[in-house]
Amino acid sequence: MQHFINQKENMVTDAIDGTIKASGGKLTRLDGYPHIRVVVRSDWDKSKVALVSGGGSGHEPSHAGFVGKGMLTAAVCGDVFASPSVDAVLAGILAVAGPAGCLLIVKNYTGDRLNFGLAAERARAFGHKVSMVIVDDDVALPDLPQARGVAGTLFVHKIAGAMAENGANLEACTLAAERVVKSTRTIGMSLDTCTVPGSLKEDRIPHGMAELGLGIHGEAGVEQVASNGAADAIAKVTEKLADGMPRTPHVALVNNLGGASCLEMSILTNSLLASELGSNIRHVVGPDALMTALDMHGFSISLLELAEGDEKHLAQPVEASAWPGMNEIAEPDVLPLPDGLSPIRAPASAHDATKEFLVACCTVLIESEADLNALDAKSGDGDTGSTLASAARALIDAMDSLPLADHTQLYRAIGLELSQTMGGSSGVLLAIFFAAAGDASSSGLPMKDALRAGLDRMREIGGANPGDRTMVDALIPALDGLKTSMSSAATAARKGANYTATLTTAKAGRASYINADQLDGHVDPGAEAVARLFEHLAA
Amino acid sequence: MQHFINQKENMVTDAIDGTIKASGGKLTRLDGYPHIRVVVRSDWDKSKVALVSGGGSGHEPSHAGFVGKGMLTAAVCGDVFASPSVDAVLAGILAVAGPAGCLLIVKNYTGDRLNFGLAAERARAFGHKVSMVIVDDDVALPDLPQARGVAGTLFVHKIAGAMAENGANLEACTLAAERVVKSTRTIGMSLDTCTVPGSLKEDRIPHGMAELGLGIHGEAGVEQVASNGAADAIAKVTEKLADGMPRTPHVALVNNLGGASCLEMSILTNSLLASELGSNIRHVVGPDALMTALDMHGFSISLLELAEGDEKHLAQPVEASAWPGMNEIAEPDVLPLPDGLSPIRAPASAHDATKEFLVACCTVLIESEADLNALDAKSGDGDTGSTLASAARALIDAMDSLPLADHTQLYRAIGLELSQTMGGSSGVLLAIFFAAAGDASSSGLPMKDALRAGLDRMREIGGANPGDRTMVDALIPALDGLKTSMSSAATAARKGANYTATLTTAKAGRASYINADQLDGHVDPGAEAVARLFEHLAA
Repeated sequence: MQHFINQKENMVTDAIDGTIKASGGKLTRLDGYPHIRVVVRSDWDKSKVALVSGGGSGHEPSHAGFVGKGMLTAAVCGDVFASPSVDAVLAGILAVAGPAGCLLIVKNYTGDRLNFGLAAERARAFGHKVSMVIVDDDVALPDLPQARGVAGTLFVHKIAGAMAENGANLEACTLAAERVVKSTRTIGMSLDTCTVPGSLKEDRIPHGMAELGLGIHGEAGVEQVASNGAADAIAKVTEKLADGMPRTPHVALVNNLGGASCLEMSILTNSLLASELGSNIRHVVGPDALMTALDMHGFSISLLELAEGDEKHLAQPVEASAWPGMNEIAEPDVLPLPDGLSPIRAPASAHDATKEFLVACCTVLIESEADLNALDAKSGDGDTGSTLASAARALIDAMDSLPLADHTQLYRAIGLELSQTMGGSSGVLLAIFFAAAGDASSSGLPMKDALRAGLDRMREIGGANPGDRTMVDALIPALDGLKTSMSSAATAARKGANYTATLTTAKAGRASYINADQLDGHVDPGAEAVARLFEHLAA
Repeated sequence: MQHFINQKENMVTDAIDGTIKASGGKLTRLDGYPHIRVVVRSDWDKSKVALVSGGGSGHEPSHAGFVGKGMLTAAVCGDVFASPSVDAVLAGILAVAGPAGCLLIVKNYTGDRLNFGLAAERARAFGHKVSMVIVDDDVALPDLPQARGVAGTLFVHKIAGAMAENGANLEACTLAAERVVKSTRTIGMSLDTCTVPGSLKEDRIPHGMAELGLGIHGEAGVEQVASNGAADAIAKVTEKLADGMPRTPHVALVNNLGGASCLEMSILTNSLLASELGSNIRHVVGPDALMTALDMHGFSISLLELAEGDEKHLAQPVEASAWPGMNEIAEPDVLPLPDGLSPIRAPASAHDATKEFLVACCTVLIESEADLNALDAKSGDGDTGSTLASAARALIDAMDSLPLADHTQLYRAIGLELSQTMGGSSGVLLAIFFAAAGDASSSGLPMKDALRAGLDRMREIGGANPGDRTMVDALIPALDGLKTSMSSAATAARKGANYTATLTTAKAGRASYINADQLDGHVDPGAEAVARLFEHLAA
């Protein structure tokens, strides 16, 4: 099955049930499955104007996600992309309409108009005050007599919802809703069609093309255009939106039609605010998936011309789970980079014995280059020897700039040097080893303990345990042995290194991708390097 | 271009800029583009423990969407699916760490561990208190030594974030974060791979199959399994989660990996709560896109074993835009259906003249069946005559059950009868006409005005204007003519009907899809029916 659904005939009720159960008790529904699918505010007491919307499903989170204090009172859900029945709409109205009356918010599709319209008549026959607004915010075709209702519907829900919550009467809510409809313009663009679960996907958009001016039911856009990225898409969309648009403050709703990634939606938002309409956009709702067409890889932009009170009503808190809030557009002050990215280098200081010691260590590594490369070729890409030798050469070159007379600073300086000259994860790990050792040393620990602290930190970050076939298998026994003597350390390091040749399952590093036969009998090159270092120092 | 991006090399900074500009001033960033991409809380004053997370991009809204009061202090953003540099992480730490110290929350990937780890060492060298937790919540492979960090990371952000906001010290935040990591288990499933902008999509999942146990970078899952819908997917996922899981209260995080539709995510949530683990799930976060893998058509479930304080910390309000809140699982009381769905039928009453009038009207329509069908065949599907005749026959059959002596109730009864016996949108429209006329009549309007009110309502709902080539073109002049006489009405109706033959652009109804040549010279069948009715009544 190519979708996460169960029986196709239950997909809408399954989704409603999931939404209700996850709503924290804020939502409930009317009895009457499967024909009556009406989601209702749990806390509704009929004391105010009720707002009812709905339509076909497949637009989630619309409309159930916008049911809650401050927005819709009920959502009537049809099948995917099909209008709910007259009975379902009537059930919704009768369930929530009180003395203050009921406002129906209907997207401009024939089925919705007719079924909500007839349900309204029936409810009126029961004495209910019912008004109805038709949302036709789509500007894909400027001369279309029956423009579609799309994502701009959410402005109507939010503003009328806030007014109703604040106690406005039905007439005031209806007039405001009609004014919002007239002041809203929406257009969408998509790179791909949507897939209705259980149906074959229509493959009508050629590679490199996009559809401009589409609805929310997978129907074709009014034109196919070349797809040239986010700024180009926004330019095409804003050209349509700008036609006849007053250049006054607006709020933009940036809607994911379902299949665009969050990354793309943020890029589109950035492009919108940088577009020629950007200076007219004072607030933004989203980007978010608000009125989707299942999984359509597209977006829509809705613009509402702000009138008095709109900002207050749009910003008013709601208990509807899917409303993302509204934010004022802000161009932030970028914060200056903090000091310290260019590391403070301790002043160079001379110390002949230390220099001699370090050069000797480096020389061992340089002389081992070919051997270590050969060992690494058994289990990796054969460059361990070169990586270590390069770092050793760089360290020798830098020797006279190091704080050789201050061991604490010297650890840190070596760590810094390695992080800048030694590639790969081993360079970072050794840098961490020396930096952490410096850290420990600065807190007063003696050398052996400082090195041990470095090892612990390196293991914590690198995740290597004893027996994982890494340099750690030689380094742990070596540092343990140091407590006795350098000679003990060397013996222990060699023993640990040789032990790695018996380990046929690497659990960290690149060798973890190699099978047992290839590893058997070969010492890990990192462990070998450690053993050679200690053997040389002991000699 | 197959994605809404601009230059590929700018996609992360473009997305960050969009996120920041749409944040209402709550977010800002450090200087240093393109290498340093660090999103920071605008209101940060360094008075508490700072929380820094991040990693590769492509997981939006993670992590910038979780920066804000009560969650992260800063997010360090790498390239898509690539770790940020040591310098970038260090910049983030140095920018936000104050005397209370800094907690790094790192997902368990080698690059992130190393780069965050080394940055932590460098920050410590400046005297900062820095601790680091590695999140490894993925349970795809129970014996994997290096489990991945995936969506469960958000539990760490939320709980440690709430504690830090409440003034907990670094040690307490770190211990809590480590405990949350140990108590969290996540697994994901996907029907398709993700598409990295600018790269070819890997086509490795056969039709009808799914991948179970995947990460968030498009890497293959640990196994391919048959895809049998939502409940089956949840069964496979919960089997992995249940292994070793204590059967104590948990909170579930239901994460969209980017490309699943909102409809599917709600169905999956419903299936999860109905699964064998459902009784262990006390709260839910989501469903929502929280930690995505670009546009991957999949989901992940994270379960956190609740310990004391977790519910409080998870429920604590935040100012991070992407946190959807946590809801207690509730099985709602379903509300009973309201009364009134079975319409109240006014009691039958006899009135010979009215009966005779109605039967005559019905007979005209029945006798016109063939003619009207023929006319409709020119512009539609040729069934207008049959639709009207069927309704007329049904009305004759129902005649003796109608409230013939009460005109107000009679309008409503005819409307009800038509809505139940007449198919298509014309049935609904005529039902609205009669119901609204009844509504007007009940408020005291005389017959002619009541019919006119019915017409207005029908036009409002149907959207047909004069000249749109519908029955309205005959009905408006007919009702206007009625003010004078039935004869005037008949003349006007005929004139209006004939006028429709000159209209070559239909703007409503099915004929709006037909081109001009096909319409020219043919009267609209609905208008013809109206003309014949009035001509007969006048005769």
